[in-house]
Amino acid sequence: MSTTLPRKDLFDLPEGMIYLDGNSLGPLPKAVKGHLASVVTDQWGANLIKGWNLDGWMEQPTRVGDRIGRLIGAPAGSVVMGDTLSIKVYQALSAGLEMRPERKVVLSDSGNFPSDLYMAEGLIRHLGKGHELRIVAPEEVEAAITDEVAVAMITQVDYRTGRMHDMDAITAKAHAAGAVMLWDLAHSAGAVPVDVAGSGCEFAVGCTYKYLNGGPGAPAFIYVRPDLVAAIEPALSGWLGHDAPFAFEQGYRPARNIERMRVGTPPVLQMSALEVALEAWDGVDMAELRAVSVRLCDLFIAEVEAKCPALELASPRDASQRGSQVSFRFEHGYAAMQALIARDVIGDFRAPDVMRFGFTPLYIDEADVRRAVAILAEVIDQRLWDRPEYRKAGRVT
Amino acid sequence: MSTTLPRKDLFDLPEGMIYLDGNSLGPLPKAVKGHLASVVTDQWGANLIKGWNLDGWMEQPTRVGDRIGRLIGAPAGSVVMGDTLSIKVYQALSAGLEMRPERKVVLSDSGNFPSDLYMAEGLIRHLGKGHELRIVAPEEVEAAITDEVAVAMITQVDYRTGRMHDMDAITAKAHAAGAVMLWDLAHSAGAVPVDVAGSGCEFAVGCTYKYLNGGPGAPAFIYVRPDLVAAIEPALSGWLGHDAPFAFEQGYRPARNIERMRVGTPPVLQMSALEVALEAWDGVDMAELRAVSVRLCDLFIAEVEAKCPALELASPRDASQRGSQVSFRFEHGYAAMQALIARDVIGDFRAPDVMRFGFTPLYIDEADVRRAVAILAEVIDQRLWDRPEYRKAGRVT
Repeated sequence: MSTTLPRKDLFDLPEGMIYLDGNSLGPLPKAVKGHLASVVTDQWGANLIKGWNLDGWMEQPTRVGDRIGRLIGAPAGSVVMGDTLSIKVYQALSAGLEMRPERKVVLSDSGNFPSDLYMAEGLIRHLGKGHELRIVAPEEVEAAITDEVAVAMITQVDYRTGRMHDMDAITAKAHAAGAVMLWDLAHSAGAVPVDVAGSGCEFAVGCTYKYLNGGPGAPAFIYVRPDLVAAIEPALSGWLGHDAPFAFEQGYRPARNIERMRVGTPPVLQMSALEVALEAWDGVDMAELRAVSVRLCDLFIAEVEAKCPALELASPRDASQRGSQVSFRFEHGYAAMQALIARDVIGDFRAPDVMRFGFTPLYIDEADVRRAVAILAEVIDQRLWDRPEYRKAGRVT
Repeated sequence: MSTTLPRKDLFDLPEGMIYLDGNSLGPLPKAVKGHLASVVTDQWGANLIKGWNLDGWMEQPTRVGDRIGRLIGAPAGSVVMGDTLSIKVYQALSAGLEMRPERKVVLSDSGNFPSDLYMAEGLIRHLGKGHELRIVAPEEVEAAITDEVAVAMITQVDYRTGRMHDMDAITAKAHAAGAVMLWDLAHSAGAVPVDVAGSGCEFAVGCTYKYLNGGPGAPAFIYVRPDLVAAIEPALSGWLGHDAPFAFEQGYRPARNIERMRVGTPPVLQMSALEVALEAWDGVDMAELRAVSVRLCDLFIAEVEAKCPALELASPRDASQRGSQVSFRFEHGYAAMQALIARDVIGDFRAPDVMRFGFTPLYIDEADVRRAVAILAEVIDQRLWDRPEYRKAGRVT
């Protein structure tokens, strides 16, 4: 196996910091600075409005979408970028509900990121057509997919515990029950091998500022299974999803391809940062990435359990059921994470007691893992979390 | 009157170019380059996830919203940034329809930007509650505001002709008829004095990449009249509109203020460019800006009519009924605009025959106007538009 990982030299990582929060916001790829400066000066500054043509801004959402597609097993022309993940959830879910007008249940699980649940709740309330958002425990998803379910809306990797659903099995179950399958890949894209086309799911959505290192607020993506796209009537029917946006027709006619999932003017500067950030993935073998990720996560679990017995594993022990993050429960987790961050080991905290650590083989190696645990053990053993400065309420990043 | 305009030194304008397309995409403010580089390196690069707290990313949408608010007469805390204008139209229109459940008409006019009409069409179709999008001629809007109208959704300045609606009069008419008033300020914000609070309108939305120079794809804004915001149940109920986003509750509870109109994670890089771009407005007196804008537009009309008799004014001659742009109809407008752009006078073209020119007193002066018309006259007189290279079909920026 050719070892191409890690690729630390591609990232600007602060000296001395061990960054285990790439599952929340990826670090800065070195290539971003120069490229973004050039987009600002040589494209916007020099070409102004002509940039839409000369610099390929108009096609950027599909061009970048194809780059994402290669990481999630989506064929060219089936992924488009834009907006935020919440908006993409709304687009996919509203389209999915229209595909099953006789069914009234949106199935999700309590491990889904709250915004997905909120968007479903808002959509259902707003439609006022008697839909129900049914939320079950992650372990109960398969059993809960009945012929009442219009759309199964599931996040593959649980943001809190790292628990990973079996995408193929659940998609097959959904289809056997006649339901539409919508996957949220927020914690999957760039974290684990994904094959959306192979799974046969109708929709997949995700964000790009986590494992894909696109920067704070990088745009989201949406995949629509190619055989379905022509039948979708977008709820968010913006001009850039029109078949001929610059004809300025009075009535909406959706584009004939994935571009109908575009809405408004794309964020060119933000997307340019993402576009160049994705070059860090050139030549990465996802199977190798996964193997390294599993090794790092397993090592972290073994080290923490050996050195910090007060912490209780909140993630699946079986790597095959886990994404690229590991979480531990600790009663004083909030303050402990503050203390850890103060010592330049960056993880994050999710209420009520979860200390969360992401492992990203592009820039994390085994030495980082060992050093992180050594510092964590100091924080726990020396009760550094009991210091007043770490106990004050507030959000831990 | 203290003369503070133009402020050309604040912008990077290409040498020799006369840029009359700031109504489509504003030029690069010099301050953007350094600031964006610092956001990338010193915020994202150095602080990573901590940037959400340390660098004020989380509050940026309201902080920037307040800056926009000062330009459109909105009180502090009543404007928030995010997404695209099309999404903001959807949010405002869906909320407006819920405020008048017994009424079924969305009134707009044929001068509205198509995306607003498309978003209304998609919303109406998706809701399936028998709403009607009624589109009248711009001159007929006031008369068409009847007690059937749930929401009057009007763009103040017509993107094609520059024709400007009387915001106070139409809002008053809407309210007298019991309708909700939604203004699109895409071609107003930074172009003409606006007083949303004074008008009493319920909603206003707009974009920031035109007269506000926020860069390609800069985020949109939404204003909600402060007394109404607590009653709105957002259709797009994303986690950052939640009252306590970091509590990760399973159910949605909207924020108690304008933040309930937030949806997903904001585009920090893109919004940082906008934030610093808005400094060009510090100390600008909108009455002075308007006076200069009128002078430039009147001069342009007089010069074109004197030197290019083949062109027919498509904008109102009366400045009080015109925004900060002037349009002329010309049978060969498409090719003529191509020829003009090739000579570094940048306007744009809108089908079927409109040549459109924006006048932005921050960086355009009378000498620019005279020189632009001299070059336009050459293009027309010498039939440069008849050259094959300008006649090929395609989009003119």
